Amino acid sequence: MRSFINVQDIGPLDKAMAEAFEIKNDRFKYQHLGKNKTLMMIFFNNSLRTRLSTQKAAMNLGMNVIVLDVNAGAWKLETERGVIMDGDKSEHLLEAIPVMGCYCDLIGVRSFAGLTDREYDYAETVLQQFIKYSGRPVFAMETATVHPLQAFADLITIKEYNPLQTSPRGGSLCGSHSPSGELEGGRSSLPKVVLTWAPHCRALPQAVPNSFAQWMNADPDVDLVITHPKGYELDPKFVGNARVEYDQKKAFEGADFIYAKNWSNPGVTNPADYGKITCEDRSWTVDTEHMSWTNNGKFMHCLPVRRNLIVTDDVIESPNSLVIPEAANREISCSVVIKRMLEAL
Amino acid sequence: MRSFINVQDIGPLDKAMAEAFEIKNDRFKYQHLGKNKTLMMIFFNNSLRTRLSTQKAAMNLGMNVIVLDVNAGAWKLETERGVIMDGDKSEHLLEAIPVMGCYCDLIGVRSFAGLTDREYDYAETVLQQFIKYSGRPVFAMETATVHPLQAFADLITIKEYNPLQTSPRGGSLCGSHSPSGELEGGRSSLPKVVLTWAPHCRALPQAVPNSFAQWMNADPDVDLVITHPKGYELDPKFVGNARVEYDQKKAFEGADFIYAKNWSNPGVTNPADYGKITCEDRSWTVDTEHMSWTNNGKFMHCLPVRRNLIVTDDVIESPNSLVIPEAANREISCSVVIKRMLEAL
Amino acid sequence: MRSFINVQDIGPLDKAMAEAFEIKNDRFKYQHLGKNKTLMMIFFNNSLRTRLSTQKAAMNLGMNVIVLDVNAGAWKLETERGVIMDGDKSEHLLEAIPVMGCYCDLIGVRSFAGLTDREYDYAETVLQQFIKYSGRPVFAMETATVHPLQAFADLITIKEYNPLQTSPRGGSLCGSHSPSGELEGGRSSLPKVVLTWAPHCRALPQAVPNSFAQWMNADPDVDLVITHPKGYELDPKFVGNARVEYDQKKAFEGADFIYAKNWSNPGVTNPADYGKITCEDRSWTVDTEHMSWTNNGKFMHCLPVRRNLIVTDDVIESPNSLVIPEAANREISCSVVIKRMLEAL
Repeated sequence: MRSFINVQDIGPLDKAMAEAFEIKNDRFKYQHLGKNKTLMMIFFNNSLRTRLSTQKAAMNLGMNVIVLDVNAGAWKLETERGVIMDGDKSEHLLEAIPVMGCYCDLIGVRSFAGLTDREYDYAETVLQQFIKYSGRPVFAMETATVHPLQAFADLITIKEYNPLQTSPRGGSLCGSHSPSGELEGGRSSLPKVVLTWAPHCRALPQAVPNSFAQWMNADPDVDLVITHPKGYELDPKFVGNARVEYDQKKAFEGADFIYAKNWSNPGVTNPADYGKITCEDRSWTVDTEHMSWTNNGKFMHCLPVRRNLIVTDDVIESPNSLVIPEAANREISCSVVIKRMLEAL
Repeated sequence: MRSFINVQDIGPLDKAMAEAFEIKNDRFKYQHLGKNKTLMMIFFNNSLRTRLSTQKAAMNLGMNVIVLDVNAGAWKLETERGVIMDGDKSEHLLEAIPVMGCYCDLIGVRSFAGLTDREYDYAETVLQQFIKYSGRPVFAMETATVHPLQAFADLITIKEYNPLQTSPRGGSLCGSHSPSGELEGGRSSLPKVVLTWAPHCRALPQAVPNSFAQWMNADPDVDLVITHPKGYELDPKFVGNARVEYDQKKAFEGADFIYAKNWSNPGVTNPADYGKITCEDRSWTVDTEHMSWTNNGKFMHCLPVRRNLIVTDDVIESPNSLVIPEAANREISCSVVIKRMLEAL
Repeated sequence: MRSFINVQDIGPLDKAMAEAFEIKNDRFKYQHLGKNKTLMMIFFNNSLRTRLSTQKAAMNLGMNVIVLDVNAGAWKLETERGVIMDGDKSEHLLEAIPVMGCYCDLIGVRSFAGLTDREYDYAETVLQQFIKYSGRPVFAMETATVHPLQAFADLITIKEYNPLQTSPRGGSLCGSHSPSGELEGGRSSLPKVVLTWAPHCRALPQAVPNSFAQWMNADPDVDLVITHPKGYELDPKFVGNARVEYDQKKAFEGADFIYAKNWSNPGVTNPADYGKITCEDRSWTVDTEHMSWTNNGKFMHCLPVRRNLIVTDDVIESPNSLVIPEAANREISCSVVIKRMLEAL
């Protein structure tokens, strides 16, 4: 695996899931793989969960870790040729990135969406520069438009807590039921997973919902519904064949998992709205009434979460809240990705 | 050991001391204990000695270490329920702390005294939140009101340099003399240890003197005297049975160890004075005349120290100054604490 | 080796080179040397290549690494005796430095030239304080006036790419030709290495050119020429017996290696000019025409480099550009230095 950005990069999902649970049962099993190998983690913006879980995963695998914090404001790499560099940019990416590659075996990149230039963000310019010029395998630790380590962890969590699952939690979790079959009572045998927009006070990227949709779509054992106010349509390449339901209540009915997340306007229906907050409707906040519409649904969120804006205290503190085990699975998803990259060196 | 805050947490002091000297003789002896274990060090304010010595101790014990710097100003965790989090606090402690616990086995916390709200500081709110919500053993790397790793290192240092000690330095250092006996000449067989206030230009917490008093009181082989200007009384729960002597000269007479430290007004006699500088009397600065009153006393300070304010150049540079070996023992005290926590996992 | 500042500290260069290539062939060969040893890296100013390559080298050698970032503005150590420390300096170097030495086995120091007080800078005050007071072997990770890890890496690179070299790259690289002999056609059998000044928009230290000159001079197998505008003379103790040629074109003629670097006025001819930019002549920028004067010369620079100011895009991107392998060799030069220090513990 030369890069890890999209769900396709991890190969067949059932195999990836099997490895995830194998590693969760013995997270030091592949420690020999990382001996004398170095991971460089490059942060262009702040991170708590990603920083800690990735570092932990790499150490579990026996790697050395170097963390490089690049203040978003201070990292001024020249990217154009021909420019006389007599301004505030002291280095050109064509030198900086290959040099970073010199001192490590794998690179994790945390970049960010500017939320002003949709084309630039969706081109994943920074990430692609690392892939092109570093000479090393690169994985996304949340970038402008994707957060695959989170989505992979989310899928692990859904497998663990799937109420329709016949095999015991922690065992083999890829369903043995027929993917399109029906259970007694006429409901689908697939867990219904609902990605719901929720209000927020700051403009946030679409990386988490993009990757969540992509990963859920890739799993034939998940029935994905996306719900959000009109105008907040995610990029079609991520929505794929998922059903979009603008009525939040209809979307929630019968849901097994509610995945809440805010995102700013993706600029799909109106490019001028890209990165803006065009809806502040707090009726979308997930509260106990919302959850009562579900099929005893589990609540998920990638964290950090603004309480009583995205979700109420009652819901996030309820026994059905999975936010902590979901965060814990970040160590597992990242371990699988690093293991795969080490094996391919 | 589930937490390390007070002297009681370390159990019998003679056993802790024996372990300290065992580890000092071979600081890698227990390296197997930390294999595949991760320490997370969380700093809410800056630190030099604590950061370095704790990291070193954890590495000596074979642990992986993750350091998380939380800028005092930037760490804005919501702590109340029911608040609509649409302000500057992006995460609630009820999510943030359990998540940190997910990625490690032990947690060290460095927090700080605000010095404005005595009740809040002495409740050790931040530290207690980590103990309650992290799911991991937690030790104090100096908090609002205690600095037990420092006090433990101080006690190790006093044992090493105790002039009344019959066994050789570096061997078993828990005295074999009768604790309340008298030596020839009528003086006590216990070393006289004097904790003296000294002036400073900034308001400092009481964490170091609090823990120093608590640890010295807990050792039956130490005769503790505390001296400070009137109004600077430490909290009674830390003073315990120690003698308080307001006349610095009388306190110093016959002392074997002088432990100098500034602290701001603890607000015990006048709550309105809490955290303030109510005395700037530079006659309390420890100079050679002060030391001449002692019994060839050793000079101690936890560092960093403001020279010629707390202590003169002559005294801190004299052969009787123990400030460097005292700092070096921070690695040892921390090693014992981490070893105990690893054994109890 | 108790300190690493000057080329003499590494001993005979042919032996150091042999070790460099041995380590380059197997960079984990001496991993046993660093077991249970700790390197403390202290940065008084920012660093990318040095931070990463030094950390990598230490980990290759099995060491634990502690990184301490000391913000240039914030590190306010008192250095004088007798001062009443009631200002903004909270610690005296006579305590701070020995304490740092307590918690490690080796120290790397990155300090910086103030470029206002030539005497202070050239006395290497900060570095010398660490050597004097830390009690540990100390190596320079670029200091006020030297950058020996860079110069050592540069020499390794020159040996690897020496067109006059008879033995294959990667093998023994210390020439077997007679040092002062001549090849057919009358040219010297020694590679001609040209250190050339180039323009820059900010005042930079002389550390890199100083060490480069010193190391090239120490190698009998290198023919060093230095070229720069009049007034930019480097300190004579670094220039040594190198030829100085003020005509850049004459200097470049027949060159095998062009080493470009800006430096601010060293204040040798006019002390009042120290640290200033007294020439902005962009005809010194290395472009394809400049390189056409050489003997198919290789281009070198320590990075970071301002493109189209120091060197044009075409030259730095040409097959003759060695800037990336040169940076990669920083890991190797540092590995040799740390290995030597570990062996001498």
